[in-house]
Amino acid sequence: MLAGIEAGGTKFNCIVSDHDLNILGQSQFPTTTPEETMANVFEFFSNYDIEAIGIGSFGPIDVNVDSPTYGYITNTPKIAWQNFAFLDTVKAQYNVPIFWTTDVNASAVGEYELGVAQDQASCLYLTFGTGVGGGFVKDGKIHTGMSHLEMGHIYVKRHTDDHYAGHCPFHNDCLEGLVCGPAIEDRFPKGTKAKDIPQTDLIWDVVADYIAQALNNYMLTLMPNRIIIGGGVLHQDSLLERIQIKFQELVNDYVAALPEATEYIQKPGLGDDAGLLGCLCLAKASLENY
Amino acid sequence: MLAGIEAGGTKFNCIVSDHDLNILGQSQFPTTTPEETMANVFEFFSNYDIEAIGIGSFGPIDVNVDSPTYGYITNTPKIAWQNFAFLDTVKAQYNVPIFWTTDVNASAVGEYELGVAQDQASCLYLTFGTGVGGGFVKDGKIHTGMSHLEMGHIYVKRHTDDHYAGHCPFHNDCLEGLVCGPAIEDRFPKGTKAKDIPQTDLIWDVVADYIAQALNNYMLTLMPNRIIIGGGVLHQDSLLERIQIKFQELVNDYVAALPEATEYIQKPGLGDDAGLLGCLCLAKASLENY
Repeated sequence: MLAGIEAGGTKFNCIVSDHDLNILGQSQFPTTTPEETMANVFEFFSNYDIEAIGIGSFGPIDVNVDSPTYGYITNTPKIAWQNFAFLDTVKAQYNVPIFWTTDVNASAVGEYELGVAQDQASCLYLTFGTGVGGGFVKDGKIHTGMSHLEMGHIYVKRHTDDHYAGHCPFHNDCLEGLVCGPAIEDRFPKGTKAKDIPQTDLIWDVVADYIAQALNNYMLTLMPNRIIIGGGVLHQDSLLERIQIKFQELVNDYVAALPEATEYIQKPGLGDDAGLLGCLCLAKASLENY
Repeated sequence: MLAGIEAGGTKFNCIVSDHDLNILGQSQFPTTTPEETMANVFEFFSNYDIEAIGIGSFGPIDVNVDSPTYGYITNTPKIAWQNFAFLDTVKAQYNVPIFWTTDVNASAVGEYELGVAQDQASCLYLTFGTGVGGGFVKDGKIHTGMSHLEMGHIYVKRHTDDHYAGHCPFHNDCLEGLVCGPAIEDRFPKGTKAKDIPQTDLIWDVVADYIAQALNNYMLTLMPNRIIIGGGVLHQDSLLERIQIKFQELVNDYVAALPEATEYIQKPGLGDDAGLLGCLCLAKASLENY
């Protein structure tokens, strides 16, 4: 049986399926301490005959196989998880093939294998929520280089009507510092929730402009065949359409092969399950390549 | 013998070597009309027994093998070359393996195979000249997706002391519109040459800031193991160092695996020959994969 662990900063989603990805069981635990959370994961898995595991983890994580801290969660603001040897902890419990990657890469794999990018040669998956992150899959492979991607922290041109200083502790007004959920709310009176800000508020034009610029930058740098955007910020109903319109404006017909923005930029076909199903796909792949 | 054509907007460089890349002949022609320029190329090659050809062309070009205009130069501002069937013209003359890519990709391949990225798993090559462009090689393969990369046209945060409207006919103040040679000169009295602007002028801080932001964005989106920057704008002596310093400031230790900026960002090891030698490497590769 195949197992998936989608390790998020607030909750862990676990799943088990047969080799054809028919789901046999699913469970969810709050992200508390590594000891407690992992004990819950292993207890859930103990009901099944696990043959391979795919892990998509919150980060930053170490994905460099030559590094002494390969498989660790590294400098996360979640103190209890700093320098947690995630992969080693799972390996100590299960002597099976394990695929280790970021949560956004797992989501990209899910959409590439089973979602709206199924018929595409490559896809870029982005999430706009508490943080901003992205994963890229091309020809069936996750793109990794010197590190996993960290494209949430790029710089974009400031909107002339937006003078917010930014929310990123490393870079102030990088993209994440401008459009992550907490950054949007931080521009309003304390206690305001993003979902309660009216659709007519200027902030949504500002957010659409920043995200459209970022998608333009990613498109020109990676040339993905599809871009998929998810996360809590996208729950604002009109935002996807505003981003598509602004993106088309910014590109200004420069890239001849580019499809219409409504086709090119889409919400995840698997909704909130992209990451978890991606973990199963990775478990399957690691079993086949073993 | 192997042949290389580095097709630039102002001149064509041609080269012939043996299978070990020992150079047997080299020639250069101005880029006039396609008919005249290609006739010069073929006349030069007629002295040799050509077994494979690598072409690195100015663009935009069509690199989609399924497209009816595959191998064409597409919507270039150089009218005579618009919709020129470059690859077909060479194929009509030589029934040998031909590798077709952009000039910046050829340079990236040159540096990856023979230059300062020889010992690296991936490298990003950027040129800052009349235009701004980039090519990316990873694990011996050129990165291409929906199109070849067009990363010169990303947006970055405007420098507070720079109010120049921008020089890009498509996007005004995209990166190319802010830092290409003509954009730098356009900020000064008519006739000023970039090489005559004093090193102490504020413009060089502005240019270093924009380029450093762009390198930060590319790094986070591609995670190359090395970044190589060339082109006429970099002939300003102090610019590389300013870019390295600003880049390190902007990243602010966010990426744990990142080497020192002085190691990570370098000038081309092959100097102005990166593209031409890259074309030979591509000719060799296409012969071996035939």
